Amino acid sequence: MPYVNIKITNEGVSTAQKQQLIAGTTELLVKVLNKDPATTFVLIEEVNTDNWGVGYDSVTTLRQQKQNTKS
Amino acid sequence: MPYVNIKITNEGVSTAQKQQLIAGTTELLVKVLNKDPATTFVLIEEVNTDNWGVGYDSVTTLRQQKQNTKS
Amino acid sequence: MPYVNIKITNEGVSTAQKQQLIAGTTELLVKVLNKDPATTFVLIEEVNTDNWGVGYDSVTTLRQQKQNTKS
Amino acid sequence: MPYVNIKITNEGVSTAQKQQLIAGTTELLVKVLNKDPATTFVLIEEVNTDNWGVGYDSVTTLRQQKQNTKS
Amino acid sequence: MPYVNIKITNEGVSTAQKQQLIAGTTELLVKVLNKDPATTFVLIEEVNTDNWGVGYDSVTTLRQQKQNTKS
Amino acid sequence: MPYVNIKITNEGVSTAQKQQLIAGTTELLVKVLNKDPATTFVLIEEVNTDNWGVGYDSVTTLRQQKQNTKS
Repeated sequence: MPYVNIKITNEGVSTAQKQQLIAGTTELLVKVLNKDPATTFVLIEEVNTDNWGVGYDSVTTLRQQKQNTKS
Repeated sequence: MPYVNIKITNEGVSTAQKQQLIAGTTELLVKVLNKDPATTFVLIEEVNTDNWGVGYDSVTTLRQQKQNTKS
Repeated sequence: MPYVNIKITNEGVSTAQKQQLIAGTTELLVKVLNKDPATTFVLIEEVNTDNWGVGYDSVTTLRQQKQNTKS
Repeated sequence: MPYVNIKITNEGVSTAQKQQLIAGTTELLVKVLNKDPATTFVLIEEVNTDNWGVGYDSVTTLRQQKQNTKS
Repeated sequence: MPYVNIKITNEGVSTAQKQQLIAGTTELLVKVLNKDPATTFVLIEEVNTDNWGVGYDSVTTLRQQKQNTKS
Repeated sequence: MPYVNIKITNEGVSTAQKQQLIAGTTELLVKVLNKDPATTFVLIEEVNTDNWGVGYDSVTTLRQQKQNTKS
């Protein structure tokens, strides 16, 4: 009966990667806590980088700063 | 002052159905806990079926499997 | 497959009331969206009134203010 | 290490306003709890007004009612 | 920068099991999405079985029913 | 109508600090988005340090490691 919510930035996560996250998380809960996969929910939420802040800045800004230092 | 968060898959829920969920949930909290509707929040989040996993698979995959067994 | 999270203040909600919230919410999702009860999760979280703020104040403070105006 | 989730209706919040919310929330946690900004997450979720209910109605309905009383 | 929230029932999960869930989830996000472990949050919430409902009943009730059918 | 959820570790946050977080967050939403304080919810959740993981380890473990390097 576990409910797992994974929030990540919406930076091009593929369907295959989402399937890996779902299967991997479910397997972890089966292995560690012997949970029933049939009632194990895994939800993935993709958040816009304008809407995710770390250290005072949005991820959009952080990515741009990183880009500028490279160029 | 309750806060209710309803997560469902984004499979064509109509505005009318959303209104039913909002009104029904609010009524339940008024009836059971005598809460004030004016400060009862009900939020509905519609999740992409690629992003919702149950039993190792995404709901997209589960729906396709069900479709295939029917045809 | 719905997941419902109900947050309320920890002001003495009984087990019977929790059961009413669980059954009522599940019934609503079955009736409105034809969801399968067996994979409908309803989670109730009881939050300390010091930890719930509305209009600049905690609910603890609001309750005390209400109490003072009555006495 | 705080994680802050801000849910607001999707009524035209600008990127600059999101940045103010991120910076302001981070600053509050640094000032009040001496938290490290580098591991302080602030996530903003913008919810469709059809999907946010207060007092039995969706915010969409409430906005329309307010509009009608003005005209 | 992922944020993962794992909700499970409060049925005696050990500290060692929590550490396995934290490490396993972090490793999955590193492997699948190449995320930085230093900014990968994994939060585990243990929910009282009275407060978790499935199929109209609380988990407390479901556990008791299962117990009764065994005896 | 904003809903803000602040998750922090349960490391001795005082009632006064909680009140500062509630008032400060509400003020930020009033100032930046002109929201109504009367329908602005701020919820603070205190999470056990065993249950919060960063970089493969729980915060309990990280705090102990920091302690050991100091002594």
